[in-house]
Amino acid sequence: MDLSQRRGMPGLAYPEEYLRRLASELTERFDGVFGAETIERYVLESYTALLRTSTVTTHLASRTVRFATDRLTALAQARGDVPSDVVEILFVCEQNAGRSQMAAVLTNHAGAGRVHVRSAGSAPSAEIHETVSVVLAELGLDIAEEFPKPLTDDVVQAANVVITMGCGDACAIYPGKRYEDWTVADPSGASLDEVRAIRDDIARRVDALLATVLPA
Amino acid sequence: MDLSQRRGMPGLAYPEEYLRRLASELTERFDGVFGAETIERYVLESYTALLRTSTVTTHLASRTVRFATDRLTALAQARGDVPSDVVEILFVCEQNAGRSQMAAVLTNHAGAGRVHVRSAGSAPSAEIHETVSVVLAELGLDIAEEFPKPLTDDVVQAANVVITMGCGDACAIYPGKRYEDWTVADPSGASLDEVRAIRDDIARRVDALLATVLPA
Repeated sequence: MDLSQRRGMPGLAYPEEYLRRLASELTERFDGVFGAETIERYVLESYTALLRTSTVTTHLASRTVRFATDRLTALAQARGDVPSDVVEILFVCEQNAGRSQMAAVLTNHAGAGRVHVRSAGSAPSAEIHETVSVVLAELGLDIAEEFPKPLTDDVVQAANVVITMGCGDACAIYPGKRYEDWTVADPSGASLDEVRAIRDDIARRVDALLATVLPA
Repeated sequence: MDLSQRRGMPGLAYPEEYLRRLASELTERFDGVFGAETIERYVLESYTALLRTSTVTTHLASRTVRFATDRLTALAQARGDVPSDVVEILFVCEQNAGRSQMAAVLTNHAGAGRVHVRSAGSAPSAEIHETVSVVLAELGLDIAEEFPKPLTDDVVQAANVVITMGCGDACAIYPGKRYEDWTVADPSGASLDEVRAIRDDIARRVDALLATVLPA
């Protein structure tokens, strides 16, 4: 079995070379903030983490870029090396395929630039539920570029507010953050009408949350 | 809900302080090999990764020490900063709760110091299957200290031989390594007799593998 052919990223014989090039680009971008060693580790570990739960490798290259860059940005924010002048909200559910993705996109939309939002999963699935994309598209919201990703320390560190939904004890508890657990139904395997109801439930909770974190 | 009380490690109000102390100890241990930034990231990300899939936090402190130390050692080996004069074998299955754990302990036993073994999972479960502990104890092998952990880039980098068992495409493919996929039954939910048969199947494969990687 020629695994290297099955697993290689499209057009790339050795993903390792691509990843090292990406690391080198990010080292320039984060010059003075992170050392090359940290950035190379972030890129290679982000790739392996997404590869673990992916079923197809088609988007793995572009997702690794986004995941690694976002994690490094979160860490820089947490350290105060990159300014963050809005409230940072992190949504965590089990699969990062439904609830936390909906909450993130709805908050991002309702927050209109006044908050910054991330999402993650305690046990991320391979792809976002199709029904979730559909019911968000009904509101004119596009999540085609989003993907499930594992909860990492850096995004918890960067958050001011952490909202968990059905992922048990998956979040590290750091002092100085606001933690909330939302009891929201799981869209996994639910009908389109049920997923619409979950979407609207989350939207109401998002409005209530924003009312408490944004200045009147 | 007082999450901080539920989630804190026993006797530690702020796990963060404990983890930073661990990072500082590892920085001394890996002096000249890794910078403090890399080590702090390894410790905090290793903790968060284990926390994601753990159901109880009782062993989380000691497991974080072992996981972070082993990952840093693997990375140092891969870079040639720490000598590795034996063949490094990595076993990967989905949960790191049965097959890859059995393969690791059986290889370690049969290899008798002539190989070094690691194991990981593409979607690690909370604990090792009880039946697996039982059938290994029947051979006088103890895996009480082992635990499921996610596949990371560092342990793939350190491996000379990577054996996958039912985890699909979870391993990054780096050049210069030998990859093998073993078709072995899953002990999850199997009877004790079935798990014994799986154990013996793996033991036979381990013997055949060792015969090819060890000098005659």
